[in-house]
Amino acid sequence: MSEFTAKASDLALRVGGELVGRDYLISGMSTLDKAGVGQLSFLSNSKYKKQLPDTKAEVVLVSAEFVEWVPNSAIVVANPYLAFAKISQLFDWRSPLVSGISPSAQIDPSAEIDPTAQIADGAIIGAQAKVSANAYIGPNVVIGDGVEVGESTRLEANVTLYNSVSIGERCIIHSGAVIGADGFGFAHDGQGWVKIAQAGGVSIGNDVEIGANTTIDRGALSDTVIADGVKLDNQIQIAHNVEIGEATAIAGCTAIAGSTRIGSHCTIAGMSGVTGHLDIADRTHITAMTLVSKSITESGVYSSGTGVEPHAQWKRNVVRFRQLDELSQRVKNLEKLVKKLAE
Amino acid sequence: MSEFTAKASDLALRVGGELVGRDYLISGMSTLDKAGVGQLSFLSNSKYKKQLPDTKAEVVLVSAEFVEWVPNSAIVVANPYLAFAKISQLFDWRSPLVSGISPSAQIDPSAEIDPTAQIADGAIIGAQAKVSANAYIGPNVVIGDGVEVGESTRLEANVTLYNSVSIGERCIIHSGAVIGADGFGFAHDGQGWVKIAQAGGVSIGNDVEIGANTTIDRGALSDTVIADGVKLDNQIQIAHNVEIGEATAIAGCTAIAGSTRIGSHCTIAGMSGVTGHLDIADRTHITAMTLVSKSITESGVYSSGTGVEPHAQWKRNVVRFRQLDELSQRVKNLEKLVKKLAE
Amino acid sequence: MSEFTAKASDLALRVGGELVGRDYLISGMSTLDKAGVGQLSFLSNSKYKKQLPDTKAEVVLVSAEFVEWVPNSAIVVANPYLAFAKISQLFDWRSPLVSGISPSAQIDPSAEIDPTAQIADGAIIGAQAKVSANAYIGPNVVIGDGVEVGESTRLEANVTLYNSVSIGERCIIHSGAVIGADGFGFAHDGQGWVKIAQAGGVSIGNDVEIGANTTIDRGALSDTVIADGVKLDNQIQIAHNVEIGEATAIAGCTAIAGSTRIGSHCTIAGMSGVTGHLDIADRTHITAMTLVSKSITESGVYSSGTGVEPHAQWKRNVVRFRQLDELSQRVKNLEKLVKKLAE
Repeated sequence: MSEFTAKASDLALRVGGELVGRDYLISGMSTLDKAGVGQLSFLSNSKYKKQLPDTKAEVVLVSAEFVEWVPNSAIVVANPYLAFAKISQLFDWRSPLVSGISPSAQIDPSAEIDPTAQIADGAIIGAQAKVSANAYIGPNVVIGDGVEVGESTRLEANVTLYNSVSIGERCIIHSGAVIGADGFGFAHDGQGWVKIAQAGGVSIGNDVEIGANTTIDRGALSDTVIADGVKLDNQIQIAHNVEIGEATAIAGCTAIAGSTRIGSHCTIAGMSGVTGHLDIADRTHITAMTLVSKSITESGVYSSGTGVEPHAQWKRNVVRFRQLDELSQRVKNLEKLVKKLAE
Repeated sequence: MSEFTAKASDLALRVGGELVGRDYLISGMSTLDKAGVGQLSFLSNSKYKKQLPDTKAEVVLVSAEFVEWVPNSAIVVANPYLAFAKISQLFDWRSPLVSGISPSAQIDPSAEIDPTAQIADGAIIGAQAKVSANAYIGPNVVIGDGVEVGESTRLEANVTLYNSVSIGERCIIHSGAVIGADGFGFAHDGQGWVKIAQAGGVSIGNDVEIGANTTIDRGALSDTVIADGVKLDNQIQIAHNVEIGEATAIAGCTAIAGSTRIGSHCTIAGMSGVTGHLDIADRTHITAMTLVSKSITESGVYSSGTGVEPHAQWKRNVVRFRQLDELSQRVKNLEKLVKKLAE
Repeated sequence: MSEFTAKASDLALRVGGELVGRDYLISGMSTLDKAGVGQLSFLSNSKYKKQLPDTKAEVVLVSAEFVEWVPNSAIVVANPYLAFAKISQLFDWRSPLVSGISPSAQIDPSAEIDPTAQIADGAIIGAQAKVSANAYIGPNVVIGDGVEVGESTRLEANVTLYNSVSIGERCIIHSGAVIGADGFGFAHDGQGWVKIAQAGGVSIGNDVEIGANTTIDRGALSDTVIADGVKLDNQIQIAHNVEIGEATAIAGCTAIAGSTRIGSHCTIAGMSGVTGHLDIADRTHITAMTLVSKSITESGVYSSGTGVEPHAQWKRNVVRFRQLDELSQRVKNLEKLVKKLAE
């Protein structure tokens, strides 16, 4: 783990905050209830404010209203959670880059590797591929022909990039992610399926993070496109020719079907699905395990599902769900009858 | 990308179509609105027919009824989408096979590798494995003992085949797929789980495509079986002893639980689940995010779920769902009361 | 496959059962209807008892009540399924360990590898990592810095362990699993997402099995924790700081969101989701494709969803679901009216 240390006053400077109290030397972070000597913590959710007076953290990031409850030092900021995020990056677990190419890596002679990049053991890089400055290509990563990896981008161990994939700057692609596999396209000839070769590629912007075992397919004729600042969690499936707008964040195990366009600044919770050829408006928010099967034209929060309940009760209700249209007709009939009776 | 070119007249021949107009030289494909010089396009969905008069495509695959609207050349066929699929394969991004074994591959001396096959960098092939003519074993692929890979089958980078896996001819297995891991089988001893060794294997037919990061488990006592012509998208989970019938296509992130038999010529949309020990009839079609929890004996289209709606409205309806059985009883009571009143 | 053979009497001893009949030599297992010479079978589900009189199995594991129907030899035990599990392990497909390090593996000089461990081709092991006695590190596995792998634990091909991961004894981690990737943590700065470095690790107990392509993220500040005896199927997603209690079993494609605590001895069926920051009681059982969006404080069986039905019928019912709150109001009104009319 990291052995980085910093003075509280320097951390305050970094996040534009005001240090109140002693200038402790900070070497790690923790939650309010677990922090100790040399550690910084934060209060971003008022539900934890009761932990504040007893925290052993030597420095706490807080908003002005809570500063008087901080037992040791405080750094006062407008948004403690954001300040915590910025400071956390100083304590990242990743080792600094060791520029150079491992002798066990296999690099095609026509590939262009910036001398500041690090190519780890067992990595395989195809013809005409380009790896930019300060990029990290992890162990056993496979990079296809003509792929471009932007500056300071990291591909963790066992990532696979097919050819015709382009990745921007400062991205992180986690292990097991597969980018550029064939989209799922077939025509039926009356007896079986005839493959449609997938001639497009995948274009990924800057500052994108892609989770472990996430898959992003190449486009059929044009590219699948992931815009700047998109964050994808683990095990997400992005089908061919999907476009995802800037700074949209998608949680684990969600799938977006072919040719759907997701707007910018959306959030999609885990295990959701969006069917193909839809258009989802900017700033749309989807709750967990929702199936979106029609376009959403208005920003807002959308949901589907029935909510969890004890199995025995659920079983009775599910039977009624299957009779729901009939029940609705019966209520309509009753309304007519009662109206008649009341006349 | 491909640098293949062909005369329009040869493409017409290939798909049994009639060339109407000049015999252009075609070097690529695109959509009607984006195609240009040297490109072929197609009209398969009448919703795009308004793009036809303005397309810059030099050749368009169309059915007879639309030929008069094609501005340049046309190839007239009965099924333009199918013709497009067949022609698309000429422009596939994959390089032609380079027969031979990379010096960085690790091949067990008892493995049998056809001299026409290509074994890429870092591939690892176990004892008694057999790789047939014109097969492609991609970078860092791992193949267990005794595995058989049929003629012209491709395993893309980072595929894992456990031992006792057999794959037919002309298959494509995409990166990150894992075939032959242990099925999820345990007996409970009152305190915890005792593993049931999974002694079966996986048997995969001809012309099967398997998507990125899809997993197919080995059988418990007999094999898990995927029939000829099956197409599986990315991140699908096929449990032990599942059988999938011919030419069935399954979209991304769907899971089939243990010992279930899916018929032939079915389509299952994405994120669906089929529970274990079921029998699904041939030509069954399942819509997205459906949970199939009982056998389906009659071919048809099946669905579950509630459909997406604005969250605030959904929240009110979900509360009512939990009261649905009670609501149904209340309607029944009303019907009795009203009947009495009406008498 | 295994070439192990054993006398029926020794197998009976192993499972504390009583051999009735001839002491056959057993070299494999199969189902009642498929077993033949040299094979053992079992009857654990009375629905298969009609197969018993005709089985060709030379030995059948049965409970006392069925012994008279066994045509050849029987081993009488209290729990035939459990006895089958125990005996199955003798016939496992895995070869015995071949201690030593493959010349194509890349081991950091500071890593500590027990001489009884097997490190397969292409495996990559980081600095200060520790591999214990009789552990198996499969082909192309990548192990990060400081990782600990316990005694007799197996990492199958292409597993990825980031640094700060610790795995107990007798675990099996299947191919494509990724353990220790960054949790999905970001703060919003008003324009986009700022990464929260994930400083925790992953701690995995003894006797844990983890399925193919399953992902378990590292914690944000403290560890993600998987307790002893947990069994995770394929393609499961475990988010940062989740805790899973002893002997809980989770089926394929389920996802657990961040900081949720799952109790011990739970079972969660496939494709289910549990949202973040929840507490799920010990011995809770969740049926397939259920979304758990609130804590469960009482052990029991829980479900959500609508159940599958023919699409045309479902479509009508879904429309009614969206009107459910309104329908409920209409029933309430009717009740008032009818009450008035009845007075």
